[in-house]
Amino acid sequence: MGRKSLPPSTMLFPTPVVLVTCVDASGKPNIITLAWVGVVNSEPPMIGISIRPNRYSHGCVKRTREFVVNLPSAEMVRKVDACGMLSGRETDKFASMGWKPIPAEKVKPPLIEECPVQMECQVREVISLGSHDLFLGQIVALHVKEEIQKEKGRIDITKALPFVYCQGAHEYWDLGRRIGYYGFTKGKP
Amino acid sequence: MGRKSLPPSTMLFPTPVVLVTCVDASGKPNIITLAWVGVVNSEPPMIGISIRPNRYSHGCVKRTREFVVNLPSAEMVRKVDACGMLSGRETDKFASMGWKPIPAEKVKPPLIEECPVQMECQVREVISLGSHDLFLGQIVALHVKEEIQKEKGRIDITKALPFVYCQGAHEYWDLGRRIGYYGFTKGKP
Repeated sequence: MGRKSLPPSTMLFPTPVVLVTCVDASGKPNIITLAWVGVVNSEPPMIGISIRPNRYSHGCVKRTREFVVNLPSAEMVRKVDACGMLSGRETDKFASMGWKPIPAEKVKPPLIEECPVQMECQVREVISLGSHDLFLGQIVALHVKEEIQKEKGRIDITKALPFVYCQGAHEYWDLGRRIGYYGFTKGKP
Repeated sequence: MGRKSLPPSTMLFPTPVVLVTCVDASGKPNIITLAWVGVVNSEPPMIGISIRPNRYSHGCVKRTREFVVNLPSAEMVRKVDACGMLSGRETDKFASMGWKPIPAEKVKPPLIEECPVQMECQVREVISLGSHDLFLGQIVALHVKEEIQKEKGRIDITKALPFVYCQGAHEYWDLGRRIGYYGFTKGKP
């Protein structure tokens, strides 16, 4: 078959790469780069993020029960990677990256101005799973830059220019071509 | 600023698109197409999938507490979309899609032969969130086709040819170019 069994590992790819903002006890904002993120519920809209307890952002999110998921575009990949290598314990990441924090609507953590999309989240559940804690957040506000919107409230991917992380290859990739749309087959393969 | 506040919704993109296999009470296999999937923990390796309770696969996974996450490649996009439009209540999806089920190593649901990667999962927790139930599964076996592997156990993305779903645009996209690798900036933006 040409199929190999490997030791179990998290071989899911591609995944989104997001910048999660939070605030510490003094209100100082921090940013963590995460690929362990996913939608977990539609009504109400909810998103799950997993963070190791030793990360500075873990304590921030656990204490304040608030975070913002910011979606970066491909031109930001260098800073997104660098942001994941540094710790908010020693670094002011907004200053280091040259990103601009702007106030959120319903939560304390700021939005990252440079990102085309932001979801403000309030934590509903925290589940300890071993290496990571899973924070389930309800999306309470959504912001989208007008320049990436097209008709009917749809996102224009050719303007948003998102990118992904490929676990297993340890690589970041941008997107290529549109190869279909949801329901385009009407159930006929 | 050119930023618009929209009603809160699950505006995370791009996300993976996976084929989750399960078995019903009689042992008959089924397949569901899912984009609400993500890694939730590294040690032990765990993955979360969210399924609406009215879906046929929901009862299968809830009852047997087992599922397999199969990663499709871009050439399969038509069938992946069609598979998400049909219900296993009326359809034998393996037969309809022309995919070949092959036995898993540690769980009852079969692997989809055509997919380059499979993760066998055992459910550790089920969390009801509203529209969806979130199943947290521990990855107990991993299979990777040899033809997508390169040196050091890394995945060759140019051979795996994965694709993504862009919520917000409702579109499937393949990948374009490699724009970096994990840690390539060594923390210098």
